[in-house]
Amino acid sequence: MERIKKFARESKVSKSEILLPNDTNMINTLMGGRLMHWMDVIGAISAQKHSNSLVVTVSVDNISFRNPIHIGQVVTLQAQVSRAFNTSMEVYIKVVAEDIPKNVKFESNSAFFTFVAINNEFKPLKVPDLIPETEEEIELFNGALRRRELRLILANRMKPGDASELNSILKI
Amino acid sequence: MERIKKFARESKVSKSEILLPNDTNMINTLMGGRLMHWMDVIGAISAQKHSNSLVVTVSVDNISFRNPIHIGQVVTLQAQVSRAFNTSMEVYIKVVAEDIPKNVKFESNSAFFTFVAINNEFKPLKVPDLIPETEEEIELFNGALRRRELRLILANRMKPGDASELNSILKI
Amino acid sequence: MERIKKFARESKVSKSEILLPNDTNMINTLMGGRLMHWMDVIGAISAQKHSNSLVVTVSVDNISFRNPIHIGQVVTLQAQVSRAFNTSMEVYIKVVAEDIPKNVKFESNSAFFTFVAINNEFKPLKVPDLIPETEEEIELFNGALRRRELRLILANRMKPGDASELNSILKI
Amino acid sequence: MERIKKFARESKVSKSEILLPNDTNMINTLMGGRLMHWMDVIGAISAQKHSNSLVVTVSVDNISFRNPIHIGQVVTLQAQVSRAFNTSMEVYIKVVAEDIPKNVKFESNSAFFTFVAINNEFKPLKVPDLIPETEEEIELFNGALRRRELRLILANRMKPGDASELNSILKI
Amino acid sequence: MERIKKFARESKVSKSEILLPNDTNMINTLMGGRLMHWMDVIGAISAQKHSNSLVVTVSVDNISFRNPIHIGQVVTLQAQVSRAFNTSMEVYIKVVAEDIPKNVKFESNSAFFTFVAINNEFKPLKVPDLIPETEEEIELFNGALRRRELRLILANRMKPGDASELNSILKI
Amino acid sequence: MERIKKFARESKVSKSEILLPNDTNMINTLMGGRLMHWMDVIGAISAQKHSNSLVVTVSVDNISFRNPIHIGQVVTLQAQVSRAFNTSMEVYIKVVAEDIPKNVKFESNSAFFTFVAINNEFKPLKVPDLIPETEEEIELFNGALRRRELRLILANRMKPGDASELNSILKI
Repeated sequence: MERIKKFARESKVSKSEILLPNDTNMINTLMGGRLMHWMDVIGAISAQKHSNSLVVTVSVDNISFRNPIHIGQVVTLQAQVSRAFNTSMEVYIKVVAEDIPKNVKFESNSAFFTFVAINNEFKPLKVPDLIPETEEEIELFNGALRRRELRLILANRMKPGDASELNSILKI
Repeated sequence: MERIKKFARESKVSKSEILLPNDTNMINTLMGGRLMHWMDVIGAISAQKHSNSLVVTVSVDNISFRNPIHIGQVVTLQAQVSRAFNTSMEVYIKVVAEDIPKNVKFESNSAFFTFVAINNEFKPLKVPDLIPETEEEIELFNGALRRRELRLILANRMKPGDASELNSILKI
Repeated sequence: MERIKKFARESKVSKSEILLPNDTNMINTLMGGRLMHWMDVIGAISAQKHSNSLVVTVSVDNISFRNPIHIGQVVTLQAQVSRAFNTSMEVYIKVVAEDIPKNVKFESNSAFFTFVAINNEFKPLKVPDLIPETEEEIELFNGALRRRELRLILANRMKPGDASELNSILKI
Repeated sequence: MERIKKFARESKVSKSEILLPNDTNMINTLMGGRLMHWMDVIGAISAQKHSNSLVVTVSVDNISFRNPIHIGQVVTLQAQVSRAFNTSMEVYIKVVAEDIPKNVKFESNSAFFTFVAINNEFKPLKVPDLIPETEEEIELFNGALRRRELRLILANRMKPGDASELNSILKI
Repeated sequence: MERIKKFARESKVSKSEILLPNDTNMINTLMGGRLMHWMDVIGAISAQKHSNSLVVTVSVDNISFRNPIHIGQVVTLQAQVSRAFNTSMEVYIKVVAEDIPKNVKFESNSAFFTFVAINNEFKPLKVPDLIPETEEEIELFNGALRRRELRLILANRMKPGDASELNSILKI
Repeated sequence: MERIKKFARESKVSKSEILLPNDTNMINTLMGGRLMHWMDVIGAISAQKHSNSLVVTVSVDNISFRNPIHIGQVVTLQAQVSRAFNTSMEVYIKVVAEDIPKNVKFESNSAFFTFVAINNEFKPLKVPDLIPETEEEIELFNGALRRRELRLILANRMKPGDASELNSILKI
């Protein structure tokens, strides 16, 4: 039988890449689409680690692309489950870019991906609860409820008036 | 001198792909990350058509992945600018999947990407206004303001109380 | 039971791509081989749409590469079945390239690919007849017979003297 | 100064590949488009060897895809210049497929690609004449004239009546 | 001015991947060549971190491929500089594979890659010395001398009799 | 029944590639990892030819990367089995790079890969003995024993004192 609670840190996973020509657009900066592909892979591994099962991507929250990342720079993605629901997991992914020869490091962006655990017949599986420990983990854990409400509203599966978490935070 | 108004339909562009092994994950369905890569490419072409300039991706709105798309199926992405702001453009991307031998066609998902027009020195450029014509174009055009407010709130660049469009629609 | 006649326009499909570094050769122009790969994919989708079946490529007619297409330019491929024979379909593929920021658009080249419809055991399937409607469709439809004769001669499966269509057109 | 005559065999080049999942379509056989991409690369190397210059693809003759090649099989492409004209070279490419564990080997298909030699400013360059030696090389050399006439007719750059080589062979 | 000593742990970097169809051979296991490609990328990032410069791969030591890694499994590569010489760095790369749904984890293999630090004109650069701290780091640091002697002998740049470190360890 | 002896030349295979943007790192030279990937493919084909069976890579010997290979240059890999053991084969792979327009050709490096022949159940298969003919083939054949001893020592599967071949050659 699977454990019913796991620590957030147990789902930590990272991935570093050097930006090669094939990853860039016509102005030699990382394509947003390539970065999202990498996010999807690393997020899926993190969700697998928490659920010990196959997973499929069910949604991606709003992502902003702030600083362009240039060819030859190193991109590091770090993923970790931020909260587990019944069969789904929200994964927080942070992207940091570095120009190592120039000794420059900057946070590029971050994203929340949601995955559902499935078995071999593609049926959703119950996943363990998540125990946050650090201050950042607790903050991510607490914010997960209102992000979930926002997702449900945007997918027309919840009425705005019922989004109690979202409303209390947005103070609307 | 560039035209200052362009029709929504002038930015229409589409792209069909057959799902090949390289596009799929370990359960033979399209990876979310691959689909987002395709969305980014087709969205950028649409934004180029409207602005007649280079463009960079600045944000992606919430995306849901509803129906899994299987190997051998045909995926068609259709993109079109939904509204132009000062230097940025919101692009609406619709994804339809088909199993042609089985005569099955289903909408897979849709997304809003935002691009900024830039010149060769990466400085933002003013873009033409967009004129929506069909009912769907007008609806997308009108919804763009509240999606923009939501993006600004999520990026901590607007206070929820100032999001008049968003509030009036959400009726909160 | 499958329909026995379909309109040419029902098989229309298009695909736009931005030329990225990975698509180019050492002089930063689109590789002929990459373009033929894209043609093959889009042609197969068009033939699937007409036949509602799996298809395999059986031949490609003479292709000329006229104007080099440069990195960053947008390539649009449009495919449509030009004539259906018993189990095979000739697909006409037109390639247009654009340098959108420079407002330049030029026809790059065109090609005829032939596909055969097959079932799951790889046996050829009867396909619907094609009904051309526009002037261009009718011209493509009429020319298909002599292109077919030329293919059969080049494959040593027809004697030049028997190519009545080809001979009447070539006026040799 | 460059040599003005070179032997056909000096331009010989080959390339073997194992068919991996990424090279195949949804029925696990080699995609025609992938094969043409490989043909283009190996043909360009052969034309470089003959001309000692950069080259660009200008045309591809009719190609038939006879036997499907399956995943795990080995594909060998052999290329060699068949005739040099003023600034262009016709390259003959032969494709052989093998299922080595099953000890089966079959010719898959062949193709003629035409390349033009260029300098760094993309201007066409004079190439050395080609000297065929073996019986096969002489046959390919002799057939090159009528294939060239056919190419010019198909590109609307020669009238059928002027194609003396083609006519004498086709006996039309 | 660059620091002249750096800790081994400062060059730590990792990369996790899910084995997708494109990474595998015809028997659905990870291709050795693909794994070496990933090792090269992650090793180069580690060497960049230690030297704060561009780097090029100069050699790879003997690698054994023990356990086949299957499609869908997660591969994690961890790299860290094991010793710095004048302008070169030996990087130790460990590969661990996991079948997460089956809760199985096994060390797949390990490798030593050597990189040289270079400046923009491709001239070798002096790199900081490395300070090992943990027991494993000290062991890797001490073994580096005899691995270097072996490399020099294999490259015919040292006579076996002069390999004092190698001889003392091998006790030959 | 399989033949029990085969000539070295029967396993010869080659592969030429033009270095395209996608094959290079941020300083426009061939990535070591990409070259190793190509070596693995061509080595596997050579081992298949000798054994007439499926093969898996079991080890790679020390590889040095001497001269950087630049974008647009042609890389030719030639592989040939150098010695067969019971179920394994050592394959010698030589890499030559050319800048054809500049008429420059240089040996880039060489490598020894070891493959094991397997059947469909992944069980090792007995392979034919190898008969070397040319002087180079005989030299490679003779050296194979001491390279094998070195591999076994490096994998902790042989004690240095038992490596009689290696010791006699190294004269330690």
